[in-house]
Amino acid sequence: MEGLKEAVVSKIHSLGEYGKDPGGGITRLLYSKSWLQAQTAVKDWLEKEGLEARFDEAGNLFGTLAGMKPDETILTGSHIDTVKNGGLYDGQYGIVAGIVAIKYLKEKYGQPLRNLEVVSIAEEEGSRFPYTFWGSKNILGMASQKDVEGIIDFDGVPFLEAMKESGFSFRNKSKGIRTDIKAFVEIHVEQGIVLEKEKKSVGVVQSIVGQRRFTVSLKGESNHAGTTPMALRRDTVHAASRMICEIMTMAKQIGDPLVATVGHIVAEPNIVNVVPGKTSFTIDVRHINKNELLHFTNQMKDAISTLAREHDVEAEIEMWMDVDPVPMDPNIVKVIEQVCRENDLNYKTMHSGAGHDAQIFAPVVPTAMLFVPSHKGISHNPAEYTEPDDLAEGVKALISTLYELAYKE
Amino acid sequence: MEGLKEAVVSKIHSLGEYGKDPGGGITRLLYSKSWLQAQTAVKDWLEKEGLEARFDEAGNLFGTLAGMKPDETILTGSHIDTVKNGGLYDGQYGIVAGIVAIKYLKEKYGQPLRNLEVVSIAEEEGSRFPYTFWGSKNILGMASQKDVEGIIDFDGVPFLEAMKESGFSFRNKSKGIRTDIKAFVEIHVEQGIVLEKEKKSVGVVQSIVGQRRFTVSLKGESNHAGTTPMALRRDTVHAASRMICEIMTMAKQIGDPLVATVGHIVAEPNIVNVVPGKTSFTIDVRHINKNELLHFTNQMKDAISTLAREHDVEAEIEMWMDVDPVPMDPNIVKVIEQVCRENDLNYKTMHSGAGHDAQIFAPVVPTAMLFVPSHKGISHNPAEYTEPDDLAEGVKALISTLYELAYKE
Repeated sequence: MEGLKEAVVSKIHSLGEYGKDPGGGITRLLYSKSWLQAQTAVKDWLEKEGLEARFDEAGNLFGTLAGMKPDETILTGSHIDTVKNGGLYDGQYGIVAGIVAIKYLKEKYGQPLRNLEVVSIAEEEGSRFPYTFWGSKNILGMASQKDVEGIIDFDGVPFLEAMKESGFSFRNKSKGIRTDIKAFVEIHVEQGIVLEKEKKSVGVVQSIVGQRRFTVSLKGESNHAGTTPMALRRDTVHAASRMICEIMTMAKQIGDPLVATVGHIVAEPNIVNVVPGKTSFTIDVRHINKNELLHFTNQMKDAISTLAREHDVEAEIEMWMDVDPVPMDPNIVKVIEQVCRENDLNYKTMHSGAGHDAQIFAPVVPTAMLFVPSHKGISHNPAEYTEPDDLAEGVKALISTLYELAYKE
Repeated sequence: MEGLKEAVVSKIHSLGEYGKDPGGGITRLLYSKSWLQAQTAVKDWLEKEGLEARFDEAGNLFGTLAGMKPDETILTGSHIDTVKNGGLYDGQYGIVAGIVAIKYLKEKYGQPLRNLEVVSIAEEEGSRFPYTFWGSKNILGMASQKDVEGIIDFDGVPFLEAMKESGFSFRNKSKGIRTDIKAFVEIHVEQGIVLEKEKKSVGVVQSIVGQRRFTVSLKGESNHAGTTPMALRRDTVHAASRMICEIMTMAKQIGDPLVATVGHIVAEPNIVNVVPGKTSFTIDVRHINKNELLHFTNQMKDAISTLAREHDVEAEIEMWMDVDPVPMDPNIVKVIEQVCRENDLNYKTMHSGAGHDAQIFAPVVPTAMLFVPSHKGISHNPAEYTEPDDLAEGVKALISTLYELAYKE
């Protein structure tokens, strides 16, 4: 599989020119000018490779290598949009890898049994409008006009206006959802440090975590830091610290794959010589098992309430995100593990701690994911990086997987 | 001592008109127009009461009832300036109480043995310029031009300019420091909740706390909240929480009168789904005993370093305030306790957790303080409040104390 590495690296960099941000990295937001330029460039490339290229109404771009069974499609791909000041790999690597893989298979094996299709998904990140997975949800008929009717971006531009201006529209509901997709395989950068730490080149994803996000708001009493004896305080930073320590201890007791993060904390009035009367913090909890996630978050809420009483503060716990875990298709996972072994690829079976388009597909079509390492786990950052050798190993795994799925009975 | 209550309440409210802030409370900053108006009003009042009134160069205002021994002066008073949106009592109650007390003694007992003087101290809060105790430090020859030469207020106005514009200047060093002050007694609102909680009307202050203030800066590693396993994290919010819990546990073990406060905390990037790679927080520690204060803060720093290592984060601890405790004069404290008992005043001997002009005087002249309760401990706030009955009890204690000090051998 020579030349794969160079092809992938070269295409990643040329695609990366669309949306290059003077502040660093790439900013390529849904329905923006650079987004349209990137999709247009991908369309040109698809046509150049002899694939049938077409947009759907929402702006997802497909490139098809027709198979002998026109009613069966094996799909690969990822999202074309980025976060603000994102990196070169998140999303677009999956698109580039898909096109390079299909081109390789076409040149080596000719017409597949089933259609082999790559998709450049319109939107996943929620980085322009407060709505995620607009692309994949449209493909699977899970999104509607109502969802996005009232929303605007940070500059006040309405979703509808941005969509129409770039030449796209809502799905024609009467058309029905496509039923030909028999499998979806997405390759993506890990956005974590496990593969790099364990010196693996490829991750075979078994499951995408479920996650719950909370905001805890504590109300105590602001007081003079010098004149208020300790026993008479209702100190919300002290209470928050007890809660955070307890949450982390509990998370450690449960162990991998549970993760819990207090990423955001704010105290009021936040002054050195005033006992803080209000503190709020967020908790982000993830697990691949729904019951474990539920069990932990219930324990967590009990602990918070108990400690609030102990510190004589009021605690309000608001859950504002609740996403179920999504297992990948075990059969496809087995296929991927096998081709990795057959190709002597240095792989590891693992779960994904981050959300992906694959989680939208998985409940509807047999789905699996491949990972390649992220240097130092850096993600959503211009410094995002994956070694070219690993990029190539990933493409090899994808090629072999797509071969099994598209060329064999 | 009839009519004291009404006199005090009435004068507090009329003085409170100078610097009334449309945003609430009083904003009366050093050398501002309202500050000069207030000092002028006090000067008029002093003269109306037959006291010899004069300003010093810095803007401190004195009102003297001449005694038989002209070389011995008993001084009382407090500061005329306020914080932004401050209350009616902090500072000006001590001035009003002093004038009302001296007027009472003059009318009842005539000429005292020693001079009886009240001072309306120019500045204490550091609320306009980054310099505190400008008034009292000038009285005692502890401040100099060099201290304030370069400083400006929030609007960029230089100290020198503000001072000159209001008609004041630097102390004439050749004049020497006054040596006639034989005692200084300051009455002030408690700014804490102890007197109110214990249903006492008067606090007899034995000591003013020393305090040390620190900023702790932690540096770990920001990472994806979903894809980074717990064991591979360098989470600075978790580390900070451990440290804060440990500091509070240690403070509780030491017990009153130690107080420790983490009033300010900031995490970076402070986002729900990112492990926070940087966190900083402040610690404010106070105690009346210097060795205890030192011992605790050393233990505290050790604990922080140990926990930093445990969490694989770097910790920088910067001490940026270090003020020694200041004991009050035990003889004057005894006198005050005695007059409280003789007058059947509901009093409590205690320490001051906040800084006061008295701490500047105490190393140089025998000094003591009286407190009256603060409703709910509210301080530096328009809602600051003391019951008129308690205001009057405080004045009674002051009158009796000044009588003992100024009229007796």
